[in-house]
Amino acid sequence: MSPNSSSNTPSTDDDLFANGVAAWSTRVRNGEFSFTDTVRYCLERARQNEDLGAFECLDDERALATAEAMDALLASRRDLGPLMGLPIGVKDIISVDGLPTTNGSNANTAHLSGSEGSVMKTLKAAGAIVLGKTKTVEFAFGATGVNEARGTPWNPVDRNVHRIPGGSSSGSAVAVSAGIVGLALGTDTGGSVRIPACFTGIVGHKTSMGRWPTDGIFPLSQTFDSVGPLVRTIDDAALLHTLMTGESITPKKSLAGLRFGVPDTLFMDELDKKVQDDFSRACDALVAAGAIRYDFDFPEAVERAYIMADILGAEVITNLTPQLFNEIRDGMDTVSAQRAAHGLSVSAVEYVAAKKRSVELAAKAHQSFHELDCWLTPTCPFEPIALSDIVSGKLHERALLASRNTQPGNMLGLCGVSLPMHKDGLPTGLQVLMASNADNTLLETAYAISDALD
Amino acid sequence: MSPNSSSNTPSTDDDLFANGVAAWSTRVRNGEFSFTDTVRYCLERARQNEDLGAFECLDDERALATAEAMDALLASRRDLGPLMGLPIGVKDIISVDGLPTTNGSNANTAHLSGSEGSVMKTLKAAGAIVLGKTKTVEFAFGATGVNEARGTPWNPVDRNVHRIPGGSSSGSAVAVSAGIVGLALGTDTGGSVRIPACFTGIVGHKTSMGRWPTDGIFPLSQTFDSVGPLVRTIDDAALLHTLMTGESITPKKSLAGLRFGVPDTLFMDELDKKVQDDFSRACDALVAAGAIRYDFDFPEAVERAYIMADILGAEVITNLTPQLFNEIRDGMDTVSAQRAAHGLSVSAVEYVAAKKRSVELAAKAHQSFHELDCWLTPTCPFEPIALSDIVSGKLHERALLASRNTQPGNMLGLCGVSLPMHKDGLPTGLQVLMASNADNTLLETAYAISDALD
Repeated sequence: MSPNSSSNTPSTDDDLFANGVAAWSTRVRNGEFSFTDTVRYCLERARQNEDLGAFECLDDERALATAEAMDALLASRRDLGPLMGLPIGVKDIISVDGLPTTNGSNANTAHLSGSEGSVMKTLKAAGAIVLGKTKTVEFAFGATGVNEARGTPWNPVDRNVHRIPGGSSSGSAVAVSAGIVGLALGTDTGGSVRIPACFTGIVGHKTSMGRWPTDGIFPLSQTFDSVGPLVRTIDDAALLHTLMTGESITPKKSLAGLRFGVPDTLFMDELDKKVQDDFSRACDALVAAGAIRYDFDFPEAVERAYIMADILGAEVITNLTPQLFNEIRDGMDTVSAQRAAHGLSVSAVEYVAAKKRSVELAAKAHQSFHELDCWLTPTCPFEPIALSDIVSGKLHERALLASRNTQPGNMLGLCGVSLPMHKDGLPTGLQVLMASNADNTLLETAYAISDALD
Repeated sequence: MSPNSSSNTPSTDDDLFANGVAAWSTRVRNGEFSFTDTVRYCLERARQNEDLGAFECLDDERALATAEAMDALLASRRDLGPLMGLPIGVKDIISVDGLPTTNGSNANTAHLSGSEGSVMKTLKAAGAIVLGKTKTVEFAFGATGVNEARGTPWNPVDRNVHRIPGGSSSGSAVAVSAGIVGLALGTDTGGSVRIPACFTGIVGHKTSMGRWPTDGIFPLSQTFDSVGPLVRTIDDAALLHTLMTGESITPKKSLAGLRFGVPDTLFMDELDKKVQDDFSRACDALVAAGAIRYDFDFPEAVERAYIMADILGAEVITNLTPQLFNEIRDGMDTVSAQRAAHGLSVSAVEYVAAKKRSVELAAKAHQSFHELDCWLTPTCPFEPIALSDIVSGKLHERALLASRNTQPGNMLGLCGVSLPMHKDGLPTGLQVLMASNADNTLLETAYAISDALD
């Protein structure tokens, strides 16, 4: 290892994390550059990509100081593993000691997120370095990534047109997709990890509810909140899931005999032509690799509309308190405010009925996994829309469908990943859904699916 | 064993189950009388006590036929254990194959209770015989035992005045207290096992939520419902808990060092003089036996008023459906209907806030068990009131406090028993509360407490 790490800062032409955290980590161990070099590289890359608006704040000085300490620690032969010294982004509804939490709002609601929680402590214990907090939809309550209150990040896939990045973990996806950090944390209550992963062409893992701890995170919904990573590779998702749960994950090498179901109603309606084409090609590739396609129907998926609206609305208003919501509502993002306001008019009986119905439907979905290994759908029904087409109203209604294919996964208690499925053009995503708590099998299978798509 | 069992039917002057199921069971094994004799005895005792109105229906023919089969089985040397051939009562919100379920209502709601569930199947597998379905407050939603729709059982402790039996498991408590059955099943959502046990001078075990399965039972509240037994002895409660959960229970012999907390606010307010005196004597007896009394406060217990009203109201209306409730409401018991109707006006935000608050308070209560082994309170603040004093309005307000001391146990997720604590006069009950899922320790301790009270 070079004693003068500063001279080795990699060029920002080099996409350090493109092949995953382990590849980067090996280069550090090989002495190519240090943790401090890596942080300098990330900060430079953040500066170059400032226009994307991925970050709410950068913690540059502390990140550099921590990297220097990690370099010293590694030099003393204490190696914390592949996450040691890795710069990461953290969705700004997740508390990090010493950094403010905006929850994507101009109103002060940091107290609702609480103090730093278990997931952050685990990442820090593994040596990860917080480069900064990433932009989020206000209170994580929106799927397009639009935040009128504190800004909507650019999707890096198109530098000429401001396309939506997907949300609510918008900044985390943009920061990872643009190679500014090694990985980032998001949360998924109705699709907020999978949708931005889809739109920015990366991998997102929606963990099973309750599998990763959610303390120290703004409570949008006590029923449906989950934390998960936005990453470049399935390896990185597996690395984090093993860190958080201790579950071992062994990549599947073959798809032979994998029974994948393609649910018709809702999921396949009104797809963009390119989404339809990419999805058909993906399914064909899996069949060519030995998987077996089952076309089936889960018509109750349409019930996600009222079930999710009633439960999320009521829970976010309870968590904010109606008093605070009424105070801050005029300064909020229009769509987030509207969706939250719905919670004010839901009756307890409607709420309990929605909860009861979601339990029934989850049991029915669970049954389907006796005959299927996974469900496959496009993650989103359309390509990343230009922000101006939403603002002008032209595609406003269309944008409301951003979470149409992801919300059923939350409602039914499933886990899922979104994998890039496009060959060219704008990104599209393949959603793989499995039964609750089958996250390790999901990731093991995702390796083989990803191989087949290549 | 006598080949002609009919000649051995015990006299109804003999209170067969007074010393518990095991004692009765031993007499059968000793050949004193058969299972068939026992059923005949129970049916005769039911006839003599018809005025008490404990039963919704008797299953006399089938009970006799089953008893004969059990006699033959025992004669063939297949002994199913102490519950074999035991006549039991089943609260009429619990489905039993071949018997109607009224749920205490004149409206047809049997479909809501579903088909026979796990607890009944377990009891039948152990050889128990259903003598009949016992009266319940309408939809188990009331603590006094009053049911204007289908009748209020008499409390057997006073044959001259119609005193309330406590509810909602009113008929089960009356049938056990009057010695008509060996034991009976009740349910406890806000005190419905403990209160009738207290008023009729027997033992009631409110099990921890989720510890006994609740399928095949009318769903009053998915949050707070629990099933539990009304019994003559702690032995009988232990026998059933071990049957349902496999947990072993070893009676404690000594109270030395037992730390019992007496919570002040709410629980000790406005006690009847006799309740106060009996409770003081009980606490003194425990201290004399080596236990240590801690006076503490859990002022948040007062929040049970709105938390239980909002959650139970919303859940029962959801389970009935608002449509059905509105159709049947005019024919319902006035108090049950009024309490349920509250659920129509609760907002989802109020409901979610109540749930959230109950989780916070349960965590706080749980903390108290680091320093205390149990909480002790009077089960009910007053002696069994004359029904006429409720109807006339004289003690109507007072009667509303029937569940005041028990509802906090449900709200805080505790388990509990009510033990007789009176020496003479009308019955009073000692409520022992422990942490969630500490049912085996609770029953083990109850033995020593009961010994100290004698």
